[in-house]
Amino acid sequence: MSVTAPAGFEAAGIARGLKSSGDRDLALVVNRGPSTAAAAVFTSNRCKANPILWSEQVIRDGSVLAVILNSGGANCYTGTFGFQTTHATAEAVAEALSVSAGDVIVCSTGLIGTGDQVFRDRVVGGVPGVVAALTQNGGTDAALAIMTTDTKAKQSVAAGDGWSIGGMAKGAGMLAPGLATMLVVITTDADLPAAALDRALRAATRVTFDRLDSDGCMSTNDTVTLMASGASGVVPDEATFTAALTGLCHDLALQLQADAEGASHDITITVVNAEAEDQAVTVGRSVSRSNLFKAAIFGNDPNWGRVLAAVGTVSEAEATFDPYNIDVTINGVMICKAGEPFEDRDLIDLTPRAVTVLIDLHSGDAVASIYTNDLTHDYVHENSAYAS
Amino acid sequence: MSVTAPAGFEAAGIARGLKSSGDRDLALVVNRGPSTAAAAVFTSNRCKANPILWSEQVIRDGSVLAVILNSGGANCYTGTFGFQTTHATAEAVAEALSVSAGDVIVCSTGLIGTGDQVFRDRVVGGVPGVVAALTQNGGTDAALAIMTTDTKAKQSVAAGDGWSIGGMAKGAGMLAPGLATMLVVITTDADLPAAALDRALRAATRVTFDRLDSDGCMSTNDTVTLMASGASGVVPDEATFTAALTGLCHDLALQLQADAEGASHDITITVVNAEAEDQAVTVGRSVSRSNLFKAAIFGNDPNWGRVLAAVGTVSEAEATFDPYNIDVTINGVMICKAGEPFEDRDLIDLTPRAVTVLIDLHSGDAVASIYTNDLTHDYVHENSAYAS
Repeated sequence: MSVTAPAGFEAAGIARGLKSSGDRDLALVVNRGPSTAAAAVFTSNRCKANPILWSEQVIRDGSVLAVILNSGGANCYTGTFGFQTTHATAEAVAEALSVSAGDVIVCSTGLIGTGDQVFRDRVVGGVPGVVAALTQNGGTDAALAIMTTDTKAKQSVAAGDGWSIGGMAKGAGMLAPGLATMLVVITTDADLPAAALDRALRAATRVTFDRLDSDGCMSTNDTVTLMASGASGVVPDEATFTAALTGLCHDLALQLQADAEGASHDITITVVNAEAEDQAVTVGRSVSRSNLFKAAIFGNDPNWGRVLAAVGTVSEAEATFDPYNIDVTINGVMICKAGEPFEDRDLIDLTPRAVTVLIDLHSGDAVASIYTNDLTHDYVHENSAYAS
Repeated sequence: MSVTAPAGFEAAGIARGLKSSGDRDLALVVNRGPSTAAAAVFTSNRCKANPILWSEQVIRDGSVLAVILNSGGANCYTGTFGFQTTHATAEAVAEALSVSAGDVIVCSTGLIGTGDQVFRDRVVGGVPGVVAALTQNGGTDAALAIMTTDTKAKQSVAAGDGWSIGGMAKGAGMLAPGLATMLVVITTDADLPAAALDRALRAATRVTFDRLDSDGCMSTNDTVTLMASGASGVVPDEATFTAALTGLCHDLALQLQADAEGASHDITITVVNAEAEDQAVTVGRSVSRSNLFKAAIFGNDPNWGRVLAAVGTVSEAEATFDPYNIDVTINGVMICKAGEPFEDRDLIDLTPRAVTVLIDLHSGDAVASIYTNDLTHDYVHENSAYAS
């Protein structure tokens, strides 16, 4: 299901030898129309992969008819040869579908620096096969084909009044937002113009994928594409559509969090009573990037001192708060009140996977949550062995 | 040696039960003059421990006669009671030495939130004993007493023409600069006024402790104190003194890096041909904070893609560079040239503890180095079990 749940879409996922496991590694999602409206957002990393350089041009006219995605190689820092591979991939898809290459978004994921002749042959040479495999039920095959260190396919569906949205995502490492730190394809049969899709997508990702910060590392390949087929014939209210899209993105973001490399805890850091939302985000992100805090949670240790030490690195220009009037509540137990120990730390049970950290800044009424994970032996192990 | 190497200083380190191991945990360094000139720099973390709040006031007049330091408790986020403990500690030292409490700097290190009555009794009650133990050869005892997760005492000495400098340091976790991320006491028998000491200390720490970023986590208790006894009777040239002081701070910083919690590699990230020094620092620090890069080095994997992915998170406002014209050299092998794979990765031997990463931005002629460590199983383990 997922990306093929809305009317007007077909998808496929096939194996082309890009993954040493022999699993599916080349995916295609096609919009059969009648609308071709689309929006996309990309990593804000300045070191962008070749597929990003290509796809940023594709989205300019707000029209996309296909997204081709490969795992097994990021095609990043592979030079002119790598860019030509991306271009050739789009051209091959365009030819097979009888569309313009300028309507084909390309996404790649895997090791940076991978994009040689073998890679090109497997991707470009796989296009006829993945086009031949397209079906209206191919969503799950596509979701499987974009997995790298993911252990599960991530898919989600949201239903509106006569229209629907479907989405798939991959991402387990380098999982911190630049805009988003993963590949996501979202489809809808709602009939909305590209400008409305762009507004809705930016609003949705701002509070979902952008609030995911598993390991503080921003990818070079992040892409979230939203394609509308208009096949339902329904023009939804933009606010209603944005709310449904935000819910779907939130669901996918939590699936990414739940499958983050090596993680044993999913941590929601909620900063309340901040002066402004961006200040809450900055404070939450600072805590989410504290290796000491994250290692403590791995050890089921409610080490609130490490929370405050991380909060204290946020400058006065970045966030307003009195460092000695902060409350910290972990899993419902207020362990620190106004900068002093309060409830007994032994009341806190950190054995469940889900952990909530509530930080009250007492400086306003804005709130934001950041979604992160703990720092574990398995994270270190997986990421020390990745290239081998 | 170390802090008692220069003439005019005495030191001691005794055990007061603050460490469960029974090791030395209370240190004192006393300046016997004739000069009382001093300078100090503190963490820039807004969440400052009680000893910082006290010592920031002490240094205002540029006069310090004693530094008392305890391990086994940071006395941070311990409220009014904790501040009164710091105050009482300074008063006890002042009374025993017949000096003003306003000339006594207090430093604490250990778990945040630790500073109860038992802590107070052990620290304040230990003052007569540590004063009684003062000797002109007590530097090493003092250096041992300030260790926490450090496995070695860190000491250094620098000699000038008729004068000398001695220093001791502790720090193994929360080891990223705010100013500095540890406790350091430096002594000299040179005769320089407080203003000159302040200039020299800020110049030295800016390029040494401030360039150390082991784990990206900034402490609440960092303090570097420099006391001058003037006992040599020599007034050195300020530039000469600053150079010697910088060398000593550099040596101590490398000792801290070499003993960082759980680390198996000491990584020097040098950014060359940057437009400005602060830009080189920002780029280097970004790489030093990439968990993915650090985990790769742990696994002896020269994963240059993770270096560039981290470089790319630095905004255009923060540093000027063309992301596709960057060279990356690891342990002497240029593995990436102008944004493409270059020399064979198999040429890189990452088995030695020392690793050098050279990043050429081709944007100017400024250079800076950041000193960091890898991310290891042992780091995670040590920091998940710290509080227990």
